[in-house]
Amino acid sequence: MNDSGPLSANSPFLLTPGPLTTSRVTREAMLKDWGSREEDFVALTAHVRGVLCSLAGAEASHTCVLLPGSGTFAVEAAVQTLVPRDARFLVLINGAYGRRIADIAKRLDRNTAILEWEEDAPVDPALVDKTLGGDSAITHVAIVHCETTSGLLNPVEKIAEVVAARGRKLLVDAMSSFGALPFDVHRVPCAALIASANKCLEGVPGIAFAIAEKSALAAASGNASSVSLDLHAQWQGFEKNGQWRFTPPTHVLAALAAALAQLEAEGGVPARGARYARNCRALIEGMKEFGFEPVLAAKHQAPIIVTFHRPPQLDFDTFHALLVQRGFAIYPGKLTKLDTFRIGCIGAIDETVIEAALDAIAEVLVEMGLATRAA
Amino acid sequence: MNDSGPLSANSPFLLTPGPLTTSRVTREAMLKDWGSREEDFVALTAHVRGVLCSLAGAEASHTCVLLPGSGTFAVEAAVQTLVPRDARFLVLINGAYGRRIADIAKRLDRNTAILEWEEDAPVDPALVDKTLGGDSAITHVAIVHCETTSGLLNPVEKIAEVVAARGRKLLVDAMSSFGALPFDVHRVPCAALIASANKCLEGVPGIAFAIAEKSALAAASGNASSVSLDLHAQWQGFEKNGQWRFTPPTHVLAALAAALAQLEAEGGVPARGARYARNCRALIEGMKEFGFEPVLAAKHQAPIIVTFHRPPQLDFDTFHALLVQRGFAIYPGKLTKLDTFRIGCIGAIDETVIEAALDAIAEVLVEMGLATRAA
Repeated sequence: MNDSGPLSANSPFLLTPGPLTTSRVTREAMLKDWGSREEDFVALTAHVRGVLCSLAGAEASHTCVLLPGSGTFAVEAAVQTLVPRDARFLVLINGAYGRRIADIAKRLDRNTAILEWEEDAPVDPALVDKTLGGDSAITHVAIVHCETTSGLLNPVEKIAEVVAARGRKLLVDAMSSFGALPFDVHRVPCAALIASANKCLEGVPGIAFAIAEKSALAAASGNASSVSLDLHAQWQGFEKNGQWRFTPPTHVLAALAAALAQLEAEGGVPARGARYARNCRALIEGMKEFGFEPVLAAKHQAPIIVTFHRPPQLDFDTFHALLVQRGFAIYPGKLTKLDTFRIGCIGAIDETVIEAALDAIAEVLVEMGLATRAA
Repeated sequence: MNDSGPLSANSPFLLTPGPLTTSRVTREAMLKDWGSREEDFVALTAHVRGVLCSLAGAEASHTCVLLPGSGTFAVEAAVQTLVPRDARFLVLINGAYGRRIADIAKRLDRNTAILEWEEDAPVDPALVDKTLGGDSAITHVAIVHCETTSGLLNPVEKIAEVVAARGRKLLVDAMSSFGALPFDVHRVPCAALIASANKCLEGVPGIAFAIAEKSALAAASGNASSVSLDLHAQWQGFEKNGQWRFTPPTHVLAALAAALAQLEAEGGVPARGARYARNCRALIEGMKEFGFEPVLAAKHQAPIIVTFHRPPQLDFDTFHALLVQRGFAIYPGKLTKLDTFRIGCIGAIDETVIEAALDAIAEVLVEMGLATRAA
């Protein structure tokens, strides 16, 4: 991709779970200043909200509430707003991001239950069903679609089916999957899905959002103890005059609008997911040739980020630093029980970048004395 | 200023309280992608935190905690974190931003008292002193330095003196003043001052910050009910590895760093304040020639934004739209009791822009039939 990647020295390709490499067009959309209460910015806001809803097939039932900040801010805003103070909240955990939802809920003093799996195992719909059957007090359930901790894809459709059949409400943290993996609220009924600009949508960081059921929002007045993170109040603000309640990151929104136009031009979610899948396949195949093994079984691997076992002789900091020197940033591991590192497949990159990264890895392994130079 | 202002059609000069017109150099700093956990970005973060502290003379006693989001997010984070759950909190109000602090505190269930003045009158130190003397339960006090609602400058040094003499803690919302008006924590003792990137520092919106007393932060563990807005936890994160806990708006931080370099090159806070004062003087003089009167007495006017009485025959929406057509965005009034409109003096603009805006206003008044063309 000619328009992506390093603009200057010291700007490596970001093979990380986000922020990630964006296109030049997306970054150039930030060269203009916008008045946040002017007509053109109000229109831009409405446009972005509409496109995001349409990506989830959610135009009729849901509405998109944008929020300044990181993805975690929007996850917390969804919990603050959509999980009432007297709810009982079940959080399904198989990684750090599920744990974070539980931490947020506990800090907010929500009555919180957890179900936990190993970090390389998907959430099990049958156990969720059994738990909901045995605890009628549970009103809300949360799951992470793709656990960035491992790169694992959770069976969100089956979970949504179980939760809906039991008459409970579902929140989906789709942070690292939205835009790359199909998500349709008709197949995954949910009170909200939460994501951010700077993952598979390939925008820059600074804006996150919840695509929330209008009926759930309408019932959520006063739930949030935070003024800033009150999705109901921001929704009301958008309804009233189309404006953000508080100063929005105007340039970041313009970049997101540009990124969404590029998503459509690429062929939408199917095409983007296919590109990431090609990146992921090339990455895993190439890494296997070096002797690196992915932690996850292939059937659980999302084409977002791959966790590899770290051999004891591979010092991560050195490996990382030498790769950065060659223009590629990779990511440390985050699993609690295994030594690992991670390499992302997402962003404005294609297989040629993955192949170049693999070439750099080959060089670095030689430099580190962990491989001999190929003939 | 050759490098500022409209880059393309439809990008007017923003004579508003922010987001405002930034320099081309600041916007171009967003053309690079950064890995948020890479060494260079960690260094950039430390650099920006240090510069912000130094602007307040606060390197020794305080530390700067950056936060993604709008200024209000950082104000709420300061209240969440630095006002303990068993505190009694006095909020001094003479405009919408003071009221917002009280709203935030009440939503957080803090025991909140208010003192309120007319929107064109400064907060009165003697009354604050008397109130503190009569209510020994009050532990924390909050004030807005420059009330953007009106453009009024509150006597923050005298308030700080009174609050310190009574042994209470002060929070200062310096959102629209920091970077343009002198602020030294030795003269204005405070547990925290809160501001954002996109006001007088002339960055783009998306990052806010609190410059908080280390001792106050150290005592604040567990105060916040929000994980996202917990300044103590983010401070601990910065101390641990220099990283943001959650994905930061990397491009916005790069723009802020560029903007801070330009602030220094301009001659720091005194030079910036002087430029804004020239803008403000030119604006008020020019507007008076058209018959527009500022609401505030000159002695209370900060050189940030000016509120003018709106004559009944001046339709604001038309006035605004015709000015935008000519490349200048102005702001509606926000006073509760008077019909007004506002014009900002801040951003990467100088008197030539103000003079051009005045020329445009002259044209628009003729077009609206409210003035005859000057000979």
